Amino acid sequence: MHNDMSTSEAASDSSSGSASGAISRATLIVRGFHLDGYGHVNNARYLEFYEEGRWGYMLAYLDLDDLKREGIAMVAVNVNLDWNYPATVHDELVITTQLSHVGRRKMIMHQEIHLGEHRLGEVHPRSGALVSRADFTFVLMNTTSGRAMPLEGDIAAILRPLVVEGNV
Amino acid sequence: MHNDMSTSEAASDSSSGSASGAISRATLIVRGFHLDGYGHVNNARYLEFYEEGRWGYMLAYLDLDDLKREGIAMVAVNVNLDWNYPATVHDELVITTQLSHVGRRKMIMHQEIHLGEHRLGEVHPRSGALVSRADFTFVLMNTTSGRAMPLEGDIAAILRPLVVEGNV
Amino acid sequence: MHNDMSTSEAASDSSSGSASGAISRATLIVRGFHLDGYGHVNNARYLEFYEEGRWGYMLAYLDLDDLKREGIAMVAVNVNLDWNYPATVHDELVITTQLSHVGRRKMIMHQEIHLGEHRLGEVHPRSGALVSRADFTFVLMNTTSGRAMPLEGDIAAILRPLVVEGNV
Amino acid sequence: MHNDMSTSEAASDSSSGSASGAISRATLIVRGFHLDGYGHVNNARYLEFYEEGRWGYMLAYLDLDDLKREGIAMVAVNVNLDWNYPATVHDELVITTQLSHVGRRKMIMHQEIHLGEHRLGEVHPRSGALVSRADFTFVLMNTTSGRAMPLEGDIAAILRPLVVEGNV
Repeated sequence: MHNDMSTSEAASDSSSGSASGAISRATLIVRGFHLDGYGHVNNARYLEFYEEGRWGYMLAYLDLDDLKREGIAMVAVNVNLDWNYPATVHDELVITTQLSHVGRRKMIMHQEIHLGEHRLGEVHPRSGALVSRADFTFVLMNTTSGRAMPLEGDIAAILRPLVVEGNV
Repeated sequence: MHNDMSTSEAASDSSSGSASGAISRATLIVRGFHLDGYGHVNNARYLEFYEEGRWGYMLAYLDLDDLKREGIAMVAVNVNLDWNYPATVHDELVITTQLSHVGRRKMIMHQEIHLGEHRLGEVHPRSGALVSRADFTFVLMNTTSGRAMPLEGDIAAILRPLVVEGNV
Repeated sequence: MHNDMSTSEAASDSSSGSASGAISRATLIVRGFHLDGYGHVNNARYLEFYEEGRWGYMLAYLDLDDLKREGIAMVAVNVNLDWNYPATVHDELVITTQLSHVGRRKMIMHQEIHLGEHRLGEVHPRSGALVSRADFTFVLMNTTSGRAMPLEGDIAAILRPLVVEGNV
Repeated sequence: MHNDMSTSEAASDSSSGSASGAISRATLIVRGFHLDGYGHVNNARYLEFYEEGRWGYMLAYLDLDDLKREGIAMVAVNVNLDWNYPATVHDELVITTQLSHVGRRKMIMHQEIHLGEHRLGEVHPRSGALVSRADFTFVLMNTTSGRAMPLEGDIAAILRPLVVEGNV
């Protein structure tokens, strides 16, 4: 028996019409320890799910060792997050992550969580439903000086082509 | 030796000019298990800190048993959150919670986290600094029908006088 | 690109010499939110990893709906856990779960976490090393009466053949 | 209104007959985010509660800055933990922490969690009941060499007088 609990993939995005755009997908299954006393996934866990999604994205599209060598850290400064559907135990969640905006000082990652196709081996009646969406705003920080870095030069040249403007 | 790690208080607010307004304050100290690999409080923990703050508020100003008996649950549908300063181990955090808006379908709780006065028994050099602020939007849900309830009648009469419009 | 972050599988165990024994394996990758301020996986996270492993086991070998219909809950009463190696970010962890003992009142699940083969796409120099091992002792609880149930009759007939006595 | 959610205190222990023994007490209140889908505190949260208790102990009885300057870290290598009573939302938990053994290579911290006196402002019917107990075994690690340190010399002279052998 083989039961995929969590997989991650990243693919160049064709549906958005942007040949250079990039979207990653991670999948996980809700377990008992994710829930609160109402039997729903606790609000704080969604930030962990989104972080899981962003690690998959970064490993696929950014050179983490490179960033670390240059002393660059991504620091979240804002999140605007909707909870649309209360996920519960055994639900399969698909987390999509894309870079939706790169400005001069800030960049925005747009992430969504949808119900996967199955639950406990059967087709989920709400399969595909939007569970949550979020926009995380980041600045880049020079880890030596502790100061924010402008999104210019080499780093901008790496990030800008990754932007996918439309939603997933 | 007595060392306050976390206390909560709620007081009618005088500084806002609203005689009926209400603000609660909770205090906690950052521990090792709150941190991420950078030594900063992990993003997801802030949602737990804010939830801690709201429990203090609700126990001070709302009759939870009453709500439960009536089959009413508060469901978060959105959060807009800023991270302003990266709290780290031993920092004392003061969480303030107030109701900032009650509309016909939604209500907004405004919460802030500031550095407390001390760290490891000494005055914190950044004491009072804003660590994070957030606006959580809630709807009320009838737990029997699973449907959103309008903020009318008795429940509105309880909630509206609690609103404090300005910031803390 | 396809990057397995977490997969789960369950297989009848051949290496233990027990034709009827059962072991499940789940795989996950350590992320930033699992760490503490030392850059190691925080102690409490290991209990979540082990719970993840047990869900995989139970879904493979036990009929959860059946247990729920009969009003039976598994309640952990003890854990004896060793931490052997401090896992860190990007480490791949393989969680194995087996039932190691079914007595008249208690049963024991033996679980281990080992380093997976790879880290960031390269072979991990410590691949296969034991990260942690734990024995969780459970009782079965009748959820209606709130009382512990003896491990007799039908339930014993289901559980006893699953026991794998040796280590993984 | 003032509502103590979490306080910590440390006192020389008189009941154990050890004039030099030391026990710390921390108090917290169970919130929604601590629960699992059964409405009980999730198993993994207990390790966070125990860590909270140990920070209070260490701040009261050990000089953390001193340890850090000397490059010494306490590393947990084993826990043996009982869950005796399923704590639930609004329960007040009192965490006691003491050093119960200092050997040549390992030391053991004994911790217990009991129900506090009150719940939602009323006397808890099970007030004082044992919720959980745990023995954590630690080694000291030289953070420069990454090697375990024997518990000898200055460090032993600090630790040995803190030992309280009996239970709380």
